[in-house]
Amino acid sequence: MTVTAPRGFVASGVACGIKASGAADLALVATADARPVPAAGVFTANKATAAPVVTTKAHLEFTGGRAVGVVLNSGNANAATGEPGLDDARATTAAVAHALGCEPAEILVCSTGLIGIPLPMEPLLSGVPALVDALAADGGSDAAEAIMTTDTVAKEVVVDGDGFLVGGIAKGAAMLAPNMATMLAVLTTDAEASPDVLQAALRAGVAGSFNAMSVDGCTSTNDTVLLFASGAAGPVDEPALFDAVAEACADLARQMVGDAEGATKVVEVRVVGAASDDDAARAARRVAESNLCKCSWYGEDPYWGRIVSELGSSGADFALDRVSIAYGGITVAKKGVACMHDVRALGEVMSAPYIEVTANLGLGDGTASVLTNDLTHAYIDENMGTS
Amino acid sequence: MTVTAPRGFVASGVACGIKASGAADLALVATADARPVPAAGVFTANKATAAPVVTTKAHLEFTGGRAVGVVLNSGNANAATGEPGLDDARATTAAVAHALGCEPAEILVCSTGLIGIPLPMEPLLSGVPALVDALAADGGSDAAEAIMTTDTVAKEVVVDGDGFLVGGIAKGAAMLAPNMATMLAVLTTDAEASPDVLQAALRAGVAGSFNAMSVDGCTSTNDTVLLFASGAAGPVDEPALFDAVAEACADLARQMVGDAEGATKVVEVRVVGAASDDDAARAARRVAESNLCKCSWYGEDPYWGRIVSELGSSGADFALDRVSIAYGGITVAKKGVACMHDVRALGEVMSAPYIEVTANLGLGDGTASVLTNDLTHAYIDENMGTS
Repeated sequence: MTVTAPRGFVASGVACGIKASGAADLALVATADARPVPAAGVFTANKATAAPVVTTKAHLEFTGGRAVGVVLNSGNANAATGEPGLDDARATTAAVAHALGCEPAEILVCSTGLIGIPLPMEPLLSGVPALVDALAADGGSDAAEAIMTTDTVAKEVVVDGDGFLVGGIAKGAAMLAPNMATMLAVLTTDAEASPDVLQAALRAGVAGSFNAMSVDGCTSTNDTVLLFASGAAGPVDEPALFDAVAEACADLARQMVGDAEGATKVVEVRVVGAASDDDAARAARRVAESNLCKCSWYGEDPYWGRIVSELGSSGADFALDRVSIAYGGITVAKKGVACMHDVRALGEVMSAPYIEVTANLGLGDGTASVLTNDLTHAYIDENMGTS
Repeated sequence: MTVTAPRGFVASGVACGIKASGAADLALVATADARPVPAAGVFTANKATAAPVVTTKAHLEFTGGRAVGVVLNSGNANAATGEPGLDDARATTAAVAHALGCEPAEILVCSTGLIGIPLPMEPLLSGVPALVDALAADGGSDAAEAIMTTDTVAKEVVVDGDGFLVGGIAKGAAMLAPNMATMLAVLTTDAEASPDVLQAALRAGVAGSFNAMSVDGCTSTNDTVLLFASGAAGPVDEPALFDAVAEACADLARQMVGDAEGATKVVEVRVVGAASDDDAARAARRVAESNLCKCSWYGEDPYWGRIVSELGSSGADFALDRVSIAYGGITVAKKGVACMHDVRALGEVMSAPYIEVTANLGLGDGTASVLTNDLTHAYIDENMGTS
């Protein structure tokens, strides 16, 4: 089940020739009747904003938060491509709008791939008719596959909101970081909701999921999360909608961290007992982005000294003699010094594919959690070259 | 030439048995007559401050910036060791003071190695007599070797200040980052200078060197840079002293980055044309600490898109259409988009052991430079485990 599970949406994915490999590289998610519906978006905080992000933001602003669909390509980010890049993004939306019979401003656009290279418009535009022809109520998985870059599996989700559904697809491998980072996600729901409510639900969902994960601290030029509401299921309780959107975002975020470039483990860094939630978030992120911690997790080494060192340099309020550190449920340091623990049980915790690291700062009630992974040889292999 | 080149200093290094390998692990740098001289120190900003840092700061404060020498051990950081760790640091200085015939507060102490494990005091204290016996005017290199951890070469420097000398030794491999990070450096000079002047000279020298390099963004619990002035060369011009100290710091910093764990290349990230020097520093550090950029340098891949993306997410003022990027002297992007360049010459630049990356933000006069290196398989190998 996928982005087309909620009633009122169709999707497709085709290979148009942007990727030299011949893999699928062009996707479309749209309303089944090609009529505009309420839509919301959350975008990268990177100031080197890519052309499709600029274009999508402008379209949503122009329409007051209504759209028919979104066209997405992989294999090229259309970022750092100047004014011609903006022309290309607009031309892409115009071509799709023409084929669907709607206004260009009602089509949003996302790109992901290499930065700094002009978008190959000839294959892209020639692929649009086939893309539109392929639109189907069971086409969500094709769209999910067509937006993959170094992802090894397609990411899809459906959440049952009791009377309505939230569906979604996403891609994301490296550059997963604070403020989203190279990730695209398209969510749909058949709930009825205004653009403002959708925007609030999406913003809240992103804050607790995509913005609470970090692979390498890098924030991309192209991050985009979109949410469309067909209204086919009628009005729903706002809290239920918020919950379902949040759950869909969290599920996709976990899928992304688990499939991050070269990762062998998912690690959840929990900070509790901080002076404030902000402090907890700062400390958790610092640990989650530490190459030294990430290498030790790869090596299944419970070297808590590095965690203490990162906490101490995070900027959060910190008193070494109050800190305790645990892996899984096994406490290895109390009051800032090593403590007795079951070494064999700890070995089992460290060798699992999912590790929970908990740091209690012993100062207050602040808590935060950041999802990350280990730093591996394969991450370096994937990022040494672009060709 | 090394830390004992300036007149009035002796040094030694021995193996006392902290390191299981039997390698040298205990060092001493002291005045030749065991009398206190003006001394200054700059320390880690990490709030998880190690016991030797706490002790050394307290001693310098107590004496008003005068000391006879510093004892340093490798193989154990005496960090996150609680009150017993402080007792151990004090006992170490007391043992050396007793052997030299000076006050304990006149001896400073540094440790480097694993965090969270009690300092093995028996081998350390039993090694002190041999350490003091070995003190010699040509003992600087022995001291430099005894403070190595994952360093592959000893780091030493002498700067001729025209009438006086500044000498130094240092260690540092991983965790080299803003605000110093796991590094120890001991500098000496035969210039005559007050503790206040020494402190100012050292602070200025550190700012432009150790604090302008970054290996992995991790800031250690033990960072310490010390400067002793014997006065044997008599009074000197203050600017000349500042220059010589800065040059010695810069030289040691370059040696550290070049020998950082697993590094195959030294990369200087220069940001010019920023709205302010602070902005330039923020942007340069963001690029220097980017795993994606560091992997691309390892792969000798001139993928400037990642640099633009890091600049855009650095928090510095940024306008994509004003940015240009160059490797060595070869500009690969202008006004935010790719530009024609000599691909063959660029290949030569990227394959060199030293790469200069210049980003011109096109906004103002702000400049900054950060020294870093590439992220390699060997870095991961070195940091996967502690045993």
